[in-house]
Amino acid sequence: MPGMAGDSEATDGEERVRSSFAKQGLMSTLGATLGSVAPGVVEIAIRPHAAISQQHGFVHAGAVTAIADSAAGYAALTLMPRGTGVLSTEFKINLLAPAIGDRIVARGKVVKAGRTLTVAQSEVFAESEGREKLVALLTATLMAVDAREDISD
Amino acid sequence: MPGMAGDSEATDGEERVRSSFAKQGLMSTLGATLGSVAPGVVEIAIRPHAAISQQHGFVHAGAVTAIADSAAGYAALTLMPRGTGVLSTEFKINLLAPAIGDRIVARGKVVKAGRTLTVAQSEVFAESEGREKLVALLTATLMAVDAREDISD
Amino acid sequence: MPGMAGDSEATDGEERVRSSFAKQGLMSTLGATLGSVAPGVVEIAIRPHAAISQQHGFVHAGAVTAIADSAAGYAALTLMPRGTGVLSTEFKINLLAPAIGDRIVARGKVVKAGRTLTVAQSEVFAESEGREKLVALLTATLMAVDAREDISD
Amino acid sequence: MPGMAGDSEATDGEERVRSSFAKQGLMSTLGATLGSVAPGVVEIAIRPHAAISQQHGFVHAGAVTAIADSAAGYAALTLMPRGTGVLSTEFKINLLAPAIGDRIVARGKVVKAGRTLTVAQSEVFAESEGREKLVALLTATLMAVDAREDISD
Repeated sequence: MPGMAGDSEATDGEERVRSSFAKQGLMSTLGATLGSVAPGVVEIAIRPHAAISQQHGFVHAGAVTAIADSAAGYAALTLMPRGTGVLSTEFKINLLAPAIGDRIVARGKVVKAGRTLTVAQSEVFAESEGREKLVALLTATLMAVDAREDISD
Repeated sequence: MPGMAGDSEATDGEERVRSSFAKQGLMSTLGATLGSVAPGVVEIAIRPHAAISQQHGFVHAGAVTAIADSAAGYAALTLMPRGTGVLSTEFKINLLAPAIGDRIVARGKVVKAGRTLTVAQSEVFAESEGREKLVALLTATLMAVDAREDISD
Repeated sequence: MPGMAGDSEATDGEERVRSSFAKQGLMSTLGATLGSVAPGVVEIAIRPHAAISQQHGFVHAGAVTAIADSAAGYAALTLMPRGTGVLSTEFKINLLAPAIGDRIVARGKVVKAGRTLTVAQSEVFAESEGREKLVALLTATLMAVDAREDISD
Repeated sequence: MPGMAGDSEATDGEERVRSSFAKQGLMSTLGATLGSVAPGVVEIAIRPHAAISQQHGFVHAGAVTAIADSAAGYAALTLMPRGTGVLSTEFKINLLAPAIGDRIVARGKVVKAGRTLTVAQSEVFAESEGREKLVALLTATLMAVDAREDISD
């Protein structure tokens, strides 16, 4: 898989992701935190609270999707060449169980990295009393776009 | 299509949706507002601002998805029998253009209402200087669940 | 929408689609026929028979998907520049009702034509005694690829 | 996961799948063969040939999807109670690389088994000179339906 070899690239990828994540206003609004970042793999978490709930008190599918999409997108970005930005072109999510618990964590992973399109998946787990339960599964197509004034990392 | 006939049902449906929307903490956090509600059709809007942005300043796909999913889910709820709640089981969204402009509006519409499963679509438009542009298209499967302590409208 | 203007282009598009359809071995194997072809819109039909059935005697989701995917892909191809071929990168289909009846027809339509990626939808109808019923809804992302030895229309 | 315990149940599940597969006219038409069947896991393969091709000579996405959908559906069926049939309600597939080679094999696996809905994935590999390449990834929602005259295994 391209870009998975060098340590320095890995470090670069991590810097790109952390810097970009810091610019995502929505992540801050949701209280999301960026966890581990490695080539092709990125983790983002949120803590359930009323401000991100749906009508039954579970975390809203929109919030679950937001961290799952960002985790998949950033996993893709770690493998994209410098000078490109990443955009989600489409994704699909299956919501398997209510998102409730102490912490909701999305783990994005690249399935296939391509020059133009990258496919990545995020598994979303609900952590409760030290146990994890799979609550959602997202598959996304990410596009590498040439960096320009309004699109970079 | 079930439930599309009577005015009183329509009114009931609207009350259910408005009451449920008010309980969605995420909608309030995103600054989303509920527009028109009619049998099988619901509209939800947000205004682009930094708190719901992604790294390039566009509205984050997660926020676009949140209003599109809620609009589709509530469109489904208007046609579901009293005493049931609605849950998204899965959805897919295609992001067609950057979500930028004065206002982003999601229009949910039921495609096929069933006893257990309902399929609905949301078209998401960006409004700018009085013109509308289609920026996203979501298709969702919603499930009617019997109301219980933790699941109702 | 690009390429929707000229009559000559429309005619070109139709020739490209008809010539390409004739090369799809699967369409012939399924007994599929190409109906109307216009810029951004293509129709493909099959007749239910045992050779394309699933275990309950309905038309197999794979056969429904095959004509829906081809209809969406060819709708996209009609709007792509000469010298490009079309590939499906992903699609999602909701199966709304059993595919049974006299004829199953997929109507593909371009939702958004882009330089690299085009999004198209196919509605699939079952015709029975002169009436139509929506049985499936497919959304696809199609990619324009530069014609080379192994990829053309 | 329900139904994964007993050997006899596993055997039952296998018999149900093999008997149902034999009734799928499309599988025979495509030349598909049923491989291993175990609780929650089913394998189906096809050999590329002109009769299942698209216009560039690759295996048609519709044929890839047909075996991927059937593999996912039968993986789900192995875990469903006796007296129910299985229907695909929706699926999404990402086509990652052209389906060419000696053999195309779809491996379906249950992600989450539920009373009404089961989510399953199929990975599709192209085998060539003894090596495997991932060419497609499908995620499906399957529904258990009570057996009746027209719907059983």
